[in-house]
Amino acid sequence: MKPIGPLPPEFLDQAGALSIAGRSVDSLVAEAGDTPLFVYNMAAVATRVARFRAAFPGIDLHYAIKANPLPALLAAIAPLVDGLDVASSGELAKALTVKPAQAISFAGPGKRDDELTAAIRAGATLNVESEGEATRAFAIGDRVGVTPRLAVRVNPDVELRGSGMKMGGRASPFGVDAVRAAALVRRIVAAGADWRGFHIYAGSQALDAQAIIDTQSATLALAARLAEEAGVAPPLINLGGGFGVPYFAGDVALDVERVGAALAESLARRAPILADTRFAIELGRWLVAEAGVYLTRVVDVKQSQGETFVIVDGGLNHQLAASGNFGTVVRRNYPLAVAARMGEAPTAEVTVVGPLCTPLDRLGDRVALPPVEVGDLIAIFLAGAYGASASPAAFLGHPPAIELVVERS
Amino acid sequence: MKPIGPLPPEFLDQAGALSIAGRSVDSLVAEAGDTPLFVYNMAAVATRVARFRAAFPGIDLHYAIKANPLPALLAAIAPLVDGLDVASSGELAKALTVKPAQAISFAGPGKRDDELTAAIRAGATLNVESEGEATRAFAIGDRVGVTPRLAVRVNPDVELRGSGMKMGGRASPFGVDAVRAAALVRRIVAAGADWRGFHIYAGSQALDAQAIIDTQSATLALAARLAEEAGVAPPLINLGGGFGVPYFAGDVALDVERVGAALAESLARRAPILADTRFAIELGRWLVAEAGVYLTRVVDVKQSQGETFVIVDGGLNHQLAASGNFGTVVRRNYPLAVAARMGEAPTAEVTVVGPLCTPLDRLGDRVALPPVEVGDLIAIFLAGAYGASASPAAFLGHPPAIELVVERS
Repeated sequence: MKPIGPLPPEFLDQAGALSIAGRSVDSLVAEAGDTPLFVYNMAAVATRVARFRAAFPGIDLHYAIKANPLPALLAAIAPLVDGLDVASSGELAKALTVKPAQAISFAGPGKRDDELTAAIRAGATLNVESEGEATRAFAIGDRVGVTPRLAVRVNPDVELRGSGMKMGGRASPFGVDAVRAAALVRRIVAAGADWRGFHIYAGSQALDAQAIIDTQSATLALAARLAEEAGVAPPLINLGGGFGVPYFAGDVALDVERVGAALAESLARRAPILADTRFAIELGRWLVAEAGVYLTRVVDVKQSQGETFVIVDGGLNHQLAASGNFGTVVRRNYPLAVAARMGEAPTAEVTVVGPLCTPLDRLGDRVALPPVEVGDLIAIFLAGAYGASASPAAFLGHPPAIELVVERS
Repeated sequence: MKPIGPLPPEFLDQAGALSIAGRSVDSLVAEAGDTPLFVYNMAAVATRVARFRAAFPGIDLHYAIKANPLPALLAAIAPLVDGLDVASSGELAKALTVKPAQAISFAGPGKRDDELTAAIRAGATLNVESEGEATRAFAIGDRVGVTPRLAVRVNPDVELRGSGMKMGGRASPFGVDAVRAAALVRRIVAAGADWRGFHIYAGSQALDAQAIIDTQSATLALAARLAEEAGVAPPLINLGGGFGVPYFAGDVALDVERVGAALAESLARRAPILADTRFAIELGRWLVAEAGVYLTRVVDVKQSQGETFVIVDGGLNHQLAASGNFGTVVRRNYPLAVAARMGEAPTAEVTVVGPLCTPLDRLGDRVALPPVEVGDLIAIFLAGAYGASASPAAFLGHPPAIELVVERS
């Protein structure tokens, strides 16, 4: 038997039939009309936003829409956050439907000229990733007659310890090395562009509060040093994000209150050049991952060589990360449950697989579950971030998943 | 420096500007109107079909459309093959536009009732994956008034040694265990369904001819034993596929002629009950992978901590497998080239990354390339199978890749 990850707090004490935002999964499937189905509970998102606000007073909250760009979710989350971070002109166009351009920033190591043009015309902030990109942005600003709003993305010389994806402390395609950042700021200011500050992102999916505290402290020190070197105060510092959620057995939720208290202390002691700077934290996964549940129906239950396989109608075509095939070396089980039997003791070890004709399509490997039959719904949790939009939906020709946004009435 | 995989034969001797099917990549990009772009050369596919025909006289050739379901490619390949194998009702609908239902078979461990109904109504063969699925197919056949065409997919007790994905010799969601297959055949015949034979798929992406020879020989013996046990001769045996292509440094192309000669010998000695049976080999990757090239344009070239990053406008959103994030444990480099400088000696070590804001988006890790500048085209080879359709196209909101089918004029 292999363990599964922990249930998100909203589902911990449920017994009997699973409910999401106070609604039964059967009614949600009926509303959607079919399975497989993602359900996103905006009340769970709002809970996390409120927790952030309490822990980080005075800090701007940005939503990184790459985590979940569904338009209905975006429309619901936009009023709750101060800014939106986008990573392509496609995401920019979506963000502009729900936020003013001044609240949108665009990061990405390979922005094409057409993407720079769209951002500059709209008035969004470009997080400049290289000297060459800055040069292109100046030229495009001149051509379209709009002063570009440019922040400098810095490849920090610190990494985020324990993060699922390290993006600092090493050679990187993201941002400019810290040693060149001040010179780039001076060039931006000299070119007459509107310098917006720094974007410094050291890693993602960290559960260790001390690691985030240390990274934020180092990031603040780095930003102060760069600002002094450039001789200009940054209007905004995007401190990155990196707040993780517990996906796997043994993972323990991040103590965000501790991170917030430590950041407040660091800010109280910050260098004078940052006195009037605003600070933002950019979160995607932490805001939406636990709010999402993927519901898929059991099509077959079969035996093979002594093992039991539960075959469901959705798989890695909708939830690649849960299959263990996206950015993970060792496959581990996401939390999952038989939706009608929450809280019931397991009675058998089964392997839950999707319908795809590939051995990669495995959603639960040798997991202990209560009784499960054809027609039952299986719930895969932690499906709100990097799910539907980060999976190969066309692979093997199955229909896309339905996506439903719900709020507690 | 890390090595790259070998160029497909069509590109081995090219020098200067890359051409595909006799056309320059610049003209192909001009026709497409933009990058990133997949180009599929049907002449390369036809070469492989001809090679198969010569090596396997009398054996049916099926195309597994999961490898590349692009409608234009499907229309071009359909006349070259004897059958199409599909894995969903979406693929079934596409296949029916280019082949009669009698030439289509449908495998997949989690076929929903609506999928079984579509296949039975159309008259396609269902590769039955479990006793429960057979029961559902009988009921649906009765309801719609059509005799189902049913083959039995067998989970073989042999594995394909050295295959990239083993699908036999172990507990599996695919097919019924060999010990239960004959009983299922008898049930199908007794129910009055049209029993079409066996589907036995032991693995994929094998480069070792002897491994495939051994597996085919064992598959034939297994099919004969099951047919004798069931007391009925199978009209068709789908021997599976498993023919690999060389993706990585050190890979050596499969000797298909040797496999063909060995299969002919095995067939000459086959059990009497298989005397009138037809045999099919089901190929996807081997037919189309080498025919595809992914072309993406350099957006930026930058230095970070002593390393050079070449940033291109397409990445894992179109070519997930080339980024090493789909079914591989250790990331290795696909063959790639600066399209304008085929055959030129490398001058520098660079890392080629896509535009996505994630460290996973790496297409060439520390590869040796000739000089490369902003605006150049980078060609990633082996892009014809499991590329566009097997990648998370919506991830990060970039446009989908353009796909172009070309034939040598």
